[in-house]
Amino acid sequence: MADANAIDGLIAEVGTDIVKRADEVDFARHTRDFTTTAPEGLELLGAAYPRTTEDVSRVLAYCNAHGIPVQPQGGMTGLAGGGVPQAPCLILSLERMRAIEEVDTAAASITAQAGVPLEMIQNAADDAGFLFPLDLGGRGTAQIAGNASTNAGGNRVLRYGMMRDLVLGVEAVLADGTIISSLNKMLKNNAGYDIKQLFLGTEGTLGVITRLVVRMFPKPLTVCTGLVAVDDYLGVLDLLNRCKAGLGGTLSAFEAMWPEFYHLGTVALDRRPPVEEAYGIYVLVEMMGSDPDNDQERFESVIAGAMDDGVVRDAIISKSAKDTADLWAIRDCPGEFIRAGWWPQIAFDVSIPVGEIGAFITECEARVKARWPGIATMYFGHVADSNLHLSIRHDEGLFDVHELDEEVYATVGKFKGSISAEHGIGTTKRPYLHHSRSEAELALMRRLKAALDPNGTLNPGKVI
Amino acid sequence: MADANAIDGLIAEVGTDIVKRADEVDFARHTRDFTTTAPEGLELLGAAYPRTTEDVSRVLAYCNAHGIPVQPQGGMTGLAGGGVPQAPCLILSLERMRAIEEVDTAAASITAQAGVPLEMIQNAADDAGFLFPLDLGGRGTAQIAGNASTNAGGNRVLRYGMMRDLVLGVEAVLADGTIISSLNKMLKNNAGYDIKQLFLGTEGTLGVITRLVVRMFPKPLTVCTGLVAVDDYLGVLDLLNRCKAGLGGTLSAFEAMWPEFYHLGTVALDRRPPVEEAYGIYVLVEMMGSDPDNDQERFESVIAGAMDDGVVRDAIISKSAKDTADLWAIRDCPGEFIRAGWWPQIAFDVSIPVGEIGAFITECEARVKARWPGIATMYFGHVADSNLHLSIRHDEGLFDVHELDEEVYATVGKFKGSISAEHGIGTTKRPYLHHSRSEAELALMRRLKAALDPNGTLNPGKVI
Repeated sequence: MADANAIDGLIAEVGTDIVKRADEVDFARHTRDFTTTAPEGLELLGAAYPRTTEDVSRVLAYCNAHGIPVQPQGGMTGLAGGGVPQAPCLILSLERMRAIEEVDTAAASITAQAGVPLEMIQNAADDAGFLFPLDLGGRGTAQIAGNASTNAGGNRVLRYGMMRDLVLGVEAVLADGTIISSLNKMLKNNAGYDIKQLFLGTEGTLGVITRLVVRMFPKPLTVCTGLVAVDDYLGVLDLLNRCKAGLGGTLSAFEAMWPEFYHLGTVALDRRPPVEEAYGIYVLVEMMGSDPDNDQERFESVIAGAMDDGVVRDAIISKSAKDTADLWAIRDCPGEFIRAGWWPQIAFDVSIPVGEIGAFITECEARVKARWPGIATMYFGHVADSNLHLSIRHDEGLFDVHELDEEVYATVGKFKGSISAEHGIGTTKRPYLHHSRSEAELALMRRLKAALDPNGTLNPGKVI
Repeated sequence: MADANAIDGLIAEVGTDIVKRADEVDFARHTRDFTTTAPEGLELLGAAYPRTTEDVSRVLAYCNAHGIPVQPQGGMTGLAGGGVPQAPCLILSLERMRAIEEVDTAAASITAQAGVPLEMIQNAADDAGFLFPLDLGGRGTAQIAGNASTNAGGNRVLRYGMMRDLVLGVEAVLADGTIISSLNKMLKNNAGYDIKQLFLGTEGTLGVITRLVVRMFPKPLTVCTGLVAVDDYLGVLDLLNRCKAGLGGTLSAFEAMWPEFYHLGTVALDRRPPVEEAYGIYVLVEMMGSDPDNDQERFESVIAGAMDDGVVRDAIISKSAKDTADLWAIRDCPGEFIRAGWWPQIAFDVSIPVGEIGAFITECEARVKARWPGIATMYFGHVADSNLHLSIRHDEGLFDVHELDEEVYATVGKFKGSISAEHGIGTTKRPYLHHSRSEAELALMRRLKAALDPNGTLNPGKVI
């Protein structure tokens, strides 16, 4: 099946405008995402660049009938290898399907084709006077259907939810070419099974999303930001409850940073720490409100109350856009890890039940440092969402990456956590999925895969 | 298969504590929900009352292997017949599984067994200082797993989402007895397919939910309520945008009432209309906030701004708990339809894209009144959620109910609406599902059903 002539019939059927032979394709951009690359020397069969849902349907119907595996691809900004081919296959890139079809201000929805870059959706919402809240570093390149099929998270999940919560409707093509059009625009719809869920977060293994409907929100009118210090994780939990209760639905970021991370984001980058380096944990708190007359005062009163009660030990409140940018620069320092000397590093994206994050860190520290004395670790994360990031500096010869992965993910499993909070499974996390999922759950996933893609045509070797 | 001895083997295996023979069961409460009853003379095989997930597993494994259909049941408060048996089967009632297993204030979650009444969950959250926001009329009887398997909506969807948005984790038993335990507590979890979605809103046709984890929210500290009048549906849309933008995430109800409904909820019940009966549409607006010092002023300023701009023509703002109760009594008048003389009536629960609701009503009115001159109609609904209710008085001999259903749902289909916003499909809406779902979507639902319940054991004859 995997020889260069395998796609002759496909080309005859769909045409050379849509399907390119291997020798016509520059595979560089089709064989790597932000963290992984395809096996060296991998021979690909060619690439399809559909312009319409019907093109996708014809390509999949042919490949499914002729045993040709298909690798769906978005903007290739993934962090788990979900779009990176592992074996000979046809690349299916949605990059030509980049039209925004409708902005409906009454329904507060945007209907877009799969390949529209995230930033284009954000801008379309902004032009219409709304906010599309999904935001992440790859926004200029990441494609909206890729965000949907990986259930992307990012910076504003606490306030607006993950991509699953932002998608109202989906059009997708099954492995056999069947077009499933569920371009629902309504918030309430219980007309049978919610079949869009099959295509959200399943990384293109059950179908290829070709169009979708996403929600827009009112633009926030205010943003208030502060950086506070607490003694320990109990302090983080206490502060979180105060912020949730006192700021209602307006709390939009709650980013905890442990001391090693705080040091790296400030002193190691030649910046003066806004609160001194003397505390157990630092938290960046942000609210996005809609009451310009009162929001700042309200925000400050919640922080002040926590100080009066001894929960918050020190705090600085942003008074200007520059202050805000300076505070966020600390949280965003992973983009400067090289300059700060924290490189190379291994990054983990896990979830732990919110109440257990402190205990998890204690145990994870003990386990990895007992096994690899001298290992350098750092913790930070969106803890209100249960999402913790762990970064370990990759000092040569100190540890084997797979053994480290196994140690960390086994600890995550012990705390009933998730080995993937927002990055998905792809190939890189696939060996560890059993730490977060039971054999019965994995068998059910395989049963779904067999029901929707019995020939294993779509994104082979990924997730399960 | 459907004779009275069919369950002898099941009783031998699971015991008489769990499984009761038909002659030991009072089937009255197992054969009707809030709108439908089982076919007269239906012979049931018996009833199972499991105490644990393992009991459910053993019952299902036996029934699946021996061709015995199973009817899962919650509190029987449904409005579409999803829990009402249609053919000989075993009743599987979750009523004995009524323990709240954990209230986790750090994770803001409750873990509960299937049969816990909704009101008990609300009270447990309240006792812990939180809010469980799902609320509906049947709260004392409805069971939490029934709410989950029908994806219940209710009064606070605008602010907090539907039940699907409130469930973090699920434990369910498949038709063959396999236990799938996914009792996730985390907001972010992308460790493979989100398999809980298979059991949410699928009305027990793909599995039986036995335990689940739901989210709690901070209690709101303020509630502000007003009733306003606008000229037409464009005014409703304008007001909605102002409320969403000006009240941020705190807008919690936006209930539109057309004149016939407003008249019935006031004058026909001997109440003085709080704003005079002179306008095109009336809207009950509510915000739930967390800023006691400023919320009332802010709420009033949004309404006042809409009045200054001529969008709102008249308004009354609640100044007391009694005012608030009086305003809500108008919206809640469907509970008094008999006293108001609007009885018997046929109620419709549909969704229409928010921007199209005005046009839908115009067309629906024209179609039903052309076909049945003299028909009496009334419109109201949670329009911000896209949810419209239509009530038609059932004057004897005026129309055939199925013909009326067909006319209304065909009109819904024309507007790309949903024939079920929050009530589900069950049996009553099953004949009309094609108006909201394409043949490809229905085929995909059937494919899922065949993959998870190949013998058709679970809730036969429902949804699809």
